[in-house]
Amino acid sequence: MLYLIGLGLGPDGISVLGLKILKKCDKIYMEQYTSISQTELNSLKSELKTEIIPLDRKTVEETDLLIRESQKHSVAFLIPGDPLVATTHSSLLAEARKNQTPVQIIHSSSIYSAVAETGLQLYKFGKTTTLPFPDKEYENYKPTSPYETIQSNLQNNSHTLILLDIQVTQNKQNYMTIQEALPILKDLESKLKKKLFTSKTKIVAISHLGQSNQLIKYNTMETLNKTNFGPALHCLIYPAKDLHFQEKELLETYS
Amino acid sequence: MLYLIGLGLGPDGISVLGLKILKKCDKIYMEQYTSISQTELNSLKSELKTEIIPLDRKTVEETDLLIRESQKHSVAFLIPGDPLVATTHSSLLAEARKNQTPVQIIHSSSIYSAVAETGLQLYKFGKTTTLPFPDKEYENYKPTSPYETIQSNLQNNSHTLILLDIQVTQNKQNYMTIQEALPILKDLESKLKKKLFTSKTKIVAISHLGQSNQLIKYNTMETLNKTNFGPALHCLIYPAKDLHFQEKELLETYS
Repeated sequence: MLYLIGLGLGPDGISVLGLKILKKCDKIYMEQYTSISQTELNSLKSELKTEIIPLDRKTVEETDLLIRESQKHSVAFLIPGDPLVATTHSSLLAEARKNQTPVQIIHSSSIYSAVAETGLQLYKFGKTTTLPFPDKEYENYKPTSPYETIQSNLQNNSHTLILLDIQVTQNKQNYMTIQEALPILKDLESKLKKKLFTSKTKIVAISHLGQSNQLIKYNTMETLNKTNFGPALHCLIYPAKDLHFQEKELLETYS
Repeated sequence: MLYLIGLGLGPDGISVLGLKILKKCDKIYMEQYTSISQTELNSLKSELKTEIIPLDRKTVEETDLLIRESQKHSVAFLIPGDPLVATTHSSLLAEARKNQTPVQIIHSSSIYSAVAETGLQLYKFGKTTTLPFPDKEYENYKPTSPYETIQSNLQNNSHTLILLDIQVTQNKQNYMTIQEALPILKDLESKLKKKLFTSKTKIVAISHLGQSNQLIKYNTMETLNKTNFGPALHCLIYPAKDLHFQEKELLETYS
């Protein structure tokens, strides 16, 4: 049996069910270089008798190690947030189902529903976009799709969750911060000129959502740029133009 | 301090953090008539020394009981799923923030990210809609907005999560099932005639997502209508037309 177990949004974010299952598993794997902190990892380790074996993404994506192991043992694979948010892990589920390997997903908290803490109503979120780092190898290639997704969502009076890129290199992960994201968005504005980002535009900037040090700010880009959000994980939300009074009421408390 | 604590999608869905906080709270409230099962409630009660006090929705919405109590005590309010998915609880958060009452949200798993288990990628979901029961008091008034949301999402190549209505009466909650939802959708088709629902249309039907008895089926409405999904909670997904091969691959395993 293969258990894909979500670690949720921060320390002790795993569900009680997840922890119970974890304690009974023969083998426990976790993706290396995930956003989980050392404190969080140590606290989890202290609860378990079985060691947590780190796996690099290449092994997860290019080998059938997890599926092979789970044909003989109870295997847990730990994933930050809710397990299937990343497409890599959906592929793993698809592969397991094709191999008739039983899989159970142990869900946990995710940015996708936790953003309701801003006051913006979940059912009004349109498509999500990820803002990528400019690709230095391809003459600073900057895709315009994030800008276009926001524009299309605005036409449908939908909010846009803007996830910030994670660059995975051999030895580390590089997380885009709000301060890095803002100039990229301004740059897209100067290229596409639909006035999505003006000096008056107020957007939502969030760091460490769901953790004790979380920060939510609703303000102009200039003010957000001067705000100290601490290290990543960060994300942004571009709200719909037409807000319900209840959305406005809560959102304004973060001004 | 007021803690809004998510119970997640099923038994033991609460996070380890949530349970730790709960054990230290002076008072624990829970909304009455929520979707939580008696077994789940008993299992939670057995872990706690403090009793769980049921609250009807009217008291939550129309009084400041929770905010008043949390100015003197550590108060937990238990909510199924992720706490702020329902707009009622966002209003509670807004009210608390206006009253300078400290609030901490303890997130948990939610249908909004758990739907990734179907294989459909989360970032491609557009606006969510809720399919309401026909209103018998108003000559069977049937709003067309769910149909229009699906149509608009299809134009943007987005998936639509279709939540099914919950009717709250004085003494109980009535949950719409898949078998009740399908004829309502067919009825909207015969009224609006955009061919969203034909005999060939395959949609996703889900019951008890995130629980051990969960069922996911991707099929025509006729076949889904003959499938036994058990009692509620149920929901539906209308997938975008243009699916990524990875989405198709996993989705087809539920045919």
